[in-house]
Amino acid sequence: MGHPERRILGGMTHTSVSAYAAPAPKAPLERITIPRRELGAHDILIDIKYAGICHSDIHTVRAEWGDDGAFPIVPGHEIAGVVAEVGAEVTRYRAGDRVGVGCFVDSCRECANCLAGLEQYCTGELGNVGTYNATGRDGETTYGGYSTHIVVDENYALRIPESIPLDAAAPLLCAGITLYSPLAHWQAGPGKKVAVVGLGGLGHMGVKIAHAMGAEVTVLSQSLRKKDDGLRLGADHYYATSDPATFEELAGTFDLIVNTVSANLDLNAYLGLLRTDGTLVQLGAPENPLPVAAFALIPQRKSIAGSMIGGIQETQEMLDFCGEHGLTADIEVITADRINEAYERVMASDVRYRFVIDTATI
Amino acid sequence: MGHPERRILGGMTHTSVSAYAAPAPKAPLERITIPRRELGAHDILIDIKYAGICHSDIHTVRAEWGDDGAFPIVPGHEIAGVVAEVGAEVTRYRAGDRVGVGCFVDSCRECANCLAGLEQYCTGELGNVGTYNATGRDGETTYGGYSTHIVVDENYALRIPESIPLDAAAPLLCAGITLYSPLAHWQAGPGKKVAVVGLGGLGHMGVKIAHAMGAEVTVLSQSLRKKDDGLRLGADHYYATSDPATFEELAGTFDLIVNTVSANLDLNAYLGLLRTDGTLVQLGAPENPLPVAAFALIPQRKSIAGSMIGGIQETQEMLDFCGEHGLTADIEVITADRINEAYERVMASDVRYRFVIDTATI
Repeated sequence: MGHPERRILGGMTHTSVSAYAAPAPKAPLERITIPRRELGAHDILIDIKYAGICHSDIHTVRAEWGDDGAFPIVPGHEIAGVVAEVGAEVTRYRAGDRVGVGCFVDSCRECANCLAGLEQYCTGELGNVGTYNATGRDGETTYGGYSTHIVVDENYALRIPESIPLDAAAPLLCAGITLYSPLAHWQAGPGKKVAVVGLGGLGHMGVKIAHAMGAEVTVLSQSLRKKDDGLRLGADHYYATSDPATFEELAGTFDLIVNTVSANLDLNAYLGLLRTDGTLVQLGAPENPLPVAAFALIPQRKSIAGSMIGGIQETQEMLDFCGEHGLTADIEVITADRINEAYERVMASDVRYRFVIDTATI
Repeated sequence: MGHPERRILGGMTHTSVSAYAAPAPKAPLERITIPRRELGAHDILIDIKYAGICHSDIHTVRAEWGDDGAFPIVPGHEIAGVVAEVGAEVTRYRAGDRVGVGCFVDSCRECANCLAGLEQYCTGELGNVGTYNATGRDGETTYGGYSTHIVVDENYALRIPESIPLDAAAPLLCAGITLYSPLAHWQAGPGKKVAVVGLGGLGHMGVKIAHAMGAEVTVLSQSLRKKDDGLRLGADHYYATSDPATFEELAGTFDLIVNTVSANLDLNAYLGLLRTDGTLVQLGAPENPLPVAAFALIPQRKSIAGSMIGGIQETQEMLDFCGEHGLTADIEVITADRINEAYERVMASDVRYRFVIDTATI
């Protein structure tokens, strides 16, 4: 794929590229043309090869998170590609490098969190700038990875290890780091018992990463339907949460539970599965508040925490870790014209375990 | 006060002592006679001098925690007194020593938590044996500190530093350790901003201890009614939570919030006051589950945790810390015939900050 066509748009020089967008809330995605900014001194132009489909893409285009959204929205924050061109002062990358972009493309760079490598928790006025449906520091709307090209500041791109194919790497940029960060922060590792709730796009990466970190991994899934998969992915144990006996048998077992399910679960039941000082980390955000019984936390000093993706340095660490351990997402590559069908299948949990769009088909 | 009268009861040798008990749920407390077991080899007989009145005494005798209770119940787990007699193999204490007893009088002594000094979280079959309304390893019901004497295993008694008066020491055994343990565990100290929610029996100890640990302390109280007190106790700042501006002004401020309020607060509003990686520790148990919004936890990796009193070694550490820093509870000493009146005043938050019963009046 050659370079995109350049043109002037709204006083700034932009380049027109192809993308798939939701034109309005709940509308099917369709092919459109979007502007990408001209390369700034620290920007790189990425020839996108693959873009993963994340559950939050669907939430966003369906306006299910109460956000009006800047439609048309081009989703996609699991981006893998190759550097096509670099800005005048770029030092980190050069043309031909294999790179990724995750959930944000900028942040204030000045707040304590940005300085500490926790850009995802940027508290500056800019905040972390979402890869799509956000407003950048130039005041322009951001468009995501369901597209042929993207322009990103070199400091917000990641290097994808040679050992990982680009298609199976794409989902690491969100699903991978969303699991890696809490597993690292709450110290999953040898001697630790970790439960992963839900075996979907996030959960299957959680199993692989926690296993590679050396933890004893249990999948807690609604049914035993995916049990063979779970064990193959690295789980030591697999339990159905539809069976009440699971909650008796595993009471007081886990040091860490990572909950990848966005639906409202009975968290108090899951808290019962933690041991003293154990933590349940909520990764998905259900629409309704979670009723938490104080008595489920107090008698064994348990915690419920939240965690959101990871910082740039940590995301690079995650990619390097996956490169070393040969971890990639289990994917189903689709052509762009199947995005809407894929959304339906994601909602029906009918994917093992991530759809990835071949952006050459856009 | 001499030694209590000995007699045989139910096949075991017991001693009869005077106490105040609730004969039935919600009934006023009245003077009764209760049995105390004969000194075992590792037991000490304590001549109780003072017993604090804790909110949970009231919950228990009013059966508000859904527990049927082993009535008559003699409450009291903030006990300060003097060793009157020691068992044959006691090594830790001798007659005349100033000692305290807190919320539990035994535990399994074999589980990982007991071995780690976390007896309060004992996971053995025995569990931690409550100082009252529980069943000991001998199968006998335990009776608390609203009494003239108690017999306790030496390993579950604490030494009260000489620098602390016994009356003002009593509340440290529950209120003190309930705050000290989470403040120590979540590392309140220099450079940390700590909020104490509620300025009652627990909260006032939280302010004193967090201040002595070197943290910057803010009281979050419903009104500014006790502001002068709060600042005198060691708070650096004092805000009214009835004022919505408080939640705007303090957004993202605290490393640690210790919530001493047992009523259902809007925890999501308080979570907004935490900074990145901050923790809200729930110490009181409201009757109803707390609705927690996942979005209040996820975007800044915040946590909600629970914490319950402290272990024996940590309780001793707390008493020594209080001794060193001259920290005691602010108390109102009452005679035993005023216990029922005191209960009403506790429920009306009309005490600054802890009632302590002079057990010589029982």
